[in-house]
Amino acid sequence: MEDNSYVTVKGSVYKSKQKSHRRRWNIRPSEMSINTLNPIRAIVDGMKLTPNPEKAMIALSIGDPTVFGNLPTDEKVSQALKDAIDSHKYNGYAPSVGYQKSRDVVANFYSCPEAPLEAEDVVLTSGCSQAIDLAITVLCNPGDNILIPCPGFSLYKTLAVSLGIQVKLYNLLPEKSWEIDLQHMESLIDDRTTCLIINNPSNPCGSVYSKEHLKNVLSVASKNCIPILADEIYGDMVFPGCKYQSMASLSSDVPILACGGLAKRWLVPGWRMGWILIHDRNQIFGKEVCPSGLVKLSQRILGACTIVQGAIESILNDTPQEFYYRTISFLKSNSEICFSELSTVPGLTPVLPAGAMYLMVGIEMEHFPEFQNDVQFTERLVTEQSVFCLPATAFEYPNYFRIVVTVPEEMMVEACARIREFCQRHYRPCSQDSNELDQ
Amino acid sequence: MEDNSYVTVKGSVYKSKQKSHRRRWNIRPSEMSINTLNPIRAIVDGMKLTPNPEKAMIALSIGDPTVFGNLPTDEKVSQALKDAIDSHKYNGYAPSVGYQKSRDVVANFYSCPEAPLEAEDVVLTSGCSQAIDLAITVLCNPGDNILIPCPGFSLYKTLAVSLGIQVKLYNLLPEKSWEIDLQHMESLIDDRTTCLIINNPSNPCGSVYSKEHLKNVLSVASKNCIPILADEIYGDMVFPGCKYQSMASLSSDVPILACGGLAKRWLVPGWRMGWILIHDRNQIFGKEVCPSGLVKLSQRILGACTIVQGAIESILNDTPQEFYYRTISFLKSNSEICFSELSTVPGLTPVLPAGAMYLMVGIEMEHFPEFQNDVQFTERLVTEQSVFCLPATAFEYPNYFRIVVTVPEEMMVEACARIREFCQRHYRPCSQDSNELDQ
Repeated sequence: MEDNSYVTVKGSVYKSKQKSHRRRWNIRPSEMSINTLNPIRAIVDGMKLTPNPEKAMIALSIGDPTVFGNLPTDEKVSQALKDAIDSHKYNGYAPSVGYQKSRDVVANFYSCPEAPLEAEDVVLTSGCSQAIDLAITVLCNPGDNILIPCPGFSLYKTLAVSLGIQVKLYNLLPEKSWEIDLQHMESLIDDRTTCLIINNPSNPCGSVYSKEHLKNVLSVASKNCIPILADEIYGDMVFPGCKYQSMASLSSDVPILACGGLAKRWLVPGWRMGWILIHDRNQIFGKEVCPSGLVKLSQRILGACTIVQGAIESILNDTPQEFYYRTISFLKSNSEICFSELSTVPGLTPVLPAGAMYLMVGIEMEHFPEFQNDVQFTERLVTEQSVFCLPATAFEYPNYFRIVVTVPEEMMVEACARIREFCQRHYRPCSQDSNELDQ
Repeated sequence: MEDNSYVTVKGSVYKSKQKSHRRRWNIRPSEMSINTLNPIRAIVDGMKLTPNPEKAMIALSIGDPTVFGNLPTDEKVSQALKDAIDSHKYNGYAPSVGYQKSRDVVANFYSCPEAPLEAEDVVLTSGCSQAIDLAITVLCNPGDNILIPCPGFSLYKTLAVSLGIQVKLYNLLPEKSWEIDLQHMESLIDDRTTCLIINNPSNPCGSVYSKEHLKNVLSVASKNCIPILADEIYGDMVFPGCKYQSMASLSSDVPILACGGLAKRWLVPGWRMGWILIHDRNQIFGKEVCPSGLVKLSQRILGACTIVQGAIESILNDTPQEFYYRTISFLKSNSEICFSELSTVPGLTPVLPAGAMYLMVGIEMEHFPEFQNDVQFTERLVTEQSVFCLPATAFEYPNYFRIVVTVPEEMMVEACARIREFCQRHYRPCSQDSNELDQ
């Protein structure tokens, strides 16, 4: 094809290029990369985090249980990985949804009479993040919307918005141990709502929902015919005296994609071993959605490292109960220390968690007039006391901050003492009251 | 909010539902899952693959060098992984682009004076598939198009189409050892062409491009201002006597995202360790594309397993040269056996490879009138001879088939003998000629 030709426009002949070859570089980032937003990074990167040089830094901000070395995974878990290497059986490609045997092991581990699972109901993924990504991607189109908790884990919004999917935030109620405001949640549902995300136990709240509350959530989903994405990565990480129920074990009709993985309970988040459990006893999803849609999407980049897949049978079946018990006991003890210490700090309102590894603390901002919001509050806490807590604005929930309770006990005690000192210095009697007195 | 209310339209009062709650389940698979197509699966699943019960099956179809056990990875590679486990240092989250140290090691391994690399130029990914996915995703929007080789690895199209990105296939020339038809490639470029994918060494062709040819490709990219995605997962896997050059080492201006990984050269595809090397000496990408855009996209699901990341320094630096040499010598020897055997088979036209682990064979269909195409030909080859070769229709290139040369030598010899027997049975002198004689 010639590059030049002639066209006639209103009687005049013009020489025209048939193809407009670009002669200048003009590479733009894609819309998807522009729309991939990480609120935690955006907020933390904008903070001036200069610790007090006279005090050692204590980071209560990092949702990674391995950073302090006090919560190692079990030796059996590491050994399982080494055995998988030595077997020389797990170096090749696995099917994109994972080895059949590994899927079978996960299915057996999570199967229960109320919500039976077979290997075909399991898709292994590169971490729980990919599980959530695949689940959202198979259910939603650009222009659809999903309901997500507020406060909630920021990844739901990051993934959805990057795909052109709208998010609507439903309120959790701190005064009811972060139960869902069901009326508010239901009021958000419209014709383009294609997925309801429930995170239980919760990051950042550490809350664990009762059977009754979960049944009420399922009623809303059932009445409105919305499938549930259950983020249960902290499943079974609940404190003694509290009982964890999976959503699926309580559902009679609502189809559920339950996302989980090894990251938290087995304390190996870097291994990137996650899964989706497909619960759909009434075949509501339809085969083109699950499993077919998930299988097709899993072929885009394949899933979890085969060595970890090869180790999963031993990891799930041979890890001693004491390991789980030790982790949970530690988290409960640290949570209680933190809660009871901060309960008596003027101006703070901690909410007692029942599981996971987090605790949310309300800041009565009217008593801290020096600070405009939780971001300024936590920023100054670093400057003065070298303690860093994540401002809950990162979870779309201003005037709270999140504490990670995986730090060694002595650090938790020291951090609480410093937070107390900080609050005592900056606490002011309510200006509203003083104003009223003045009048 | 009440479900019912009243609205006034043109003076009349109507009872209206403010929200139309759906009362029936109607879950549809997303457009993205519908548009995620795997041509290899589609074709293979549609074939009747019933081997001859009297002959043991020989699969020459699987692009996984580990399946026959004759090409194990090096013991040093396995040991590196076990050492990483024993260090207890690599269980937590890594940064989404990978540990700084691991990125540094990859940068050093691939850095050369013509194309220097630093840690910041490296993004570690969950396999080369995720590297290609991120590279396409950062450069292209829905409605844009990318140029991909024909015949070519099917993942490029799978990923692009699932994202609403169009693909345009440029021809490779079998008579020129699968060099690119540069004129054809350039003729496909338009205003919405945002990426040119070059796969060298090539799957499925086993071709390795000369320095001159690569420079010509770069000229087209430079003239038209199109960045290159260089899929170099088979980089350095070239036979003695042939020299591999990375695209980046030859580029003066064209920005390049080079994708690679451990899968092929280190014979551990299941470990899902890949990378993107950002080559942009003239800062043409712009920081919002690379690294920023890639970094943001990497945060969606995070990348490679941390244990493998922890092992990569030892894997890259301590694997003995003999290991690489042994693999390459074996692949070359098997390729030569296969080529020389099939060269004398009536009706077949094998193309001699120079690297990677594949060999393409043309079928002179006019000599096999019983079969309509390569799919029927290879299907019947299974039925009669229990030899399975992938029909090249899977690579959008009909009337060829691909042979994987990683099988043990005795299987390769046996497979070639069976292919010869099959062709001898079905070969017919050209019907065109006979017709002419009849007339």
